[in-house]
Amino acid sequence: MEQQQTAPDSTMDTHVLHRSAGHLSERYAGIFAPEMVERYVFESYATLGRTAKVRTYLATISVRFADDRLHALAQSMGSIAKEHPQVLFVCVQNAGRSQMAAALLSTVSGGKVEVRSAGSLPAGEIHPLAMDVMKERGIDLADAFPKPLTDDVVRAADYVITMGCGDTCPIYPGKQYLDWDVADPENVSLEDARAILSDIETRVHALWERIKTT
Amino acid sequence: MEQQQTAPDSTMDTHVLHRSAGHLSERYAGIFAPEMVERYVFESYATLGRTAKVRTYLATISVRFADDRLHALAQSMGSIAKEHPQVLFVCVQNAGRSQMAAALLSTVSGGKVEVRSAGSLPAGEIHPLAMDVMKERGIDLADAFPKPLTDDVVRAADYVITMGCGDTCPIYPGKQYLDWDVADPENVSLEDARAILSDIETRVHALWERIKTT
Repeated sequence: MEQQQTAPDSTMDTHVLHRSAGHLSERYAGIFAPEMVERYVFESYATLGRTAKVRTYLATISVRFADDRLHALAQSMGSIAKEHPQVLFVCVQNAGRSQMAAALLSTVSGGKVEVRSAGSLPAGEIHPLAMDVMKERGIDLADAFPKPLTDDVVRAADYVITMGCGDTCPIYPGKQYLDWDVADPENVSLEDARAILSDIETRVHALWERIKTT
Repeated sequence: MEQQQTAPDSTMDTHVLHRSAGHLSERYAGIFAPEMVERYVFESYATLGRTAKVRTYLATISVRFADDRLHALAQSMGSIAKEHPQVLFVCVQNAGRSQMAAALLSTVSGGKVEVRSAGSLPAGEIHPLAMDVMKERGIDLADAFPKPLTDDVVRAADYVITMGCGDTCPIYPGKQYLDWDVADPENVSLEDARAILSDIETRVHALWERIKTT
């Protein structure tokens, strides 16, 4: 009637998470208590684990995600200085549009904007077609991964740009909320994916002009 | 080219979350720092907000979710005593199977088991059919809501029972992991939904017998 499940060998993952939580605790000493850093690391792992397709690098990716979230939170609290304006792109899957926009703005601004991206229902991996057309632009998304929208990254943002994800964002005062009507590159032709990239690129350039002059 | 989005009036929600975080901080004083409690409340809101269909009670539900997660975490740390064995049911949407199993075990055990449920890809609301067949059994799921699987509730669990969600659970030593092969009550006939409930009920009774004698 019921099967005893064989536990996957996650001892290694748990080890990596514990050790990394220790390192991050040192990095955020005086800002966050070690217990909270550990929570961030393990909850990030549980969160990404619900959807991530490839599990080989799950622990490593989770630590990067936790680190970025803690960094964003520390910035929103004023404990770490914001050196640049902060932009958050949000779409549904964080596998196409928001990833493309984030990478493009980062490139276009020459790193003068701190860019993040997230999704309301993160996919298991980046859309292959999105990776392909970005590669044609000379931008590699190999290190990118779909992430859920969290409170900390919204707090850190000066600009929140949503694409097709409705009102999934917590709304905070003092931020600029923009909604872009951009098509979804999932299951489209290569030609259409290029057109979508081109649309996003135009918007990103305009956004960068706007940010520069603010 | 881009629309300035009208920010929904979430001032009330933010107010409720802040006030509730204050109350929870008092409840968990000496166990968790207020900053961590506040994080749990706001991240729970962001998490449920990504998927919740009805947004009227989002703040209230998020506070309940945060409270339960903090309670589970405190239990896993030994800071709050576990009065009863802890069982966690996990399915994909936390809208049918795991909700039914959780409510049934809670009833069958007469409250002698602390039961939780979660989903790897939580739905926007409980399946209406699941609510209907449970009501036929005299169990009301009106207060239930789909929740994502988090690290804290896995840590607290003595038994983790998965149904159709694969290896999305973080695996920890010292727990019993069981996998139940139960059909999904989404988009089935009323007759089939009753059969699924009956299947789950038989398993729940057997589980309760097992827990009692352990």
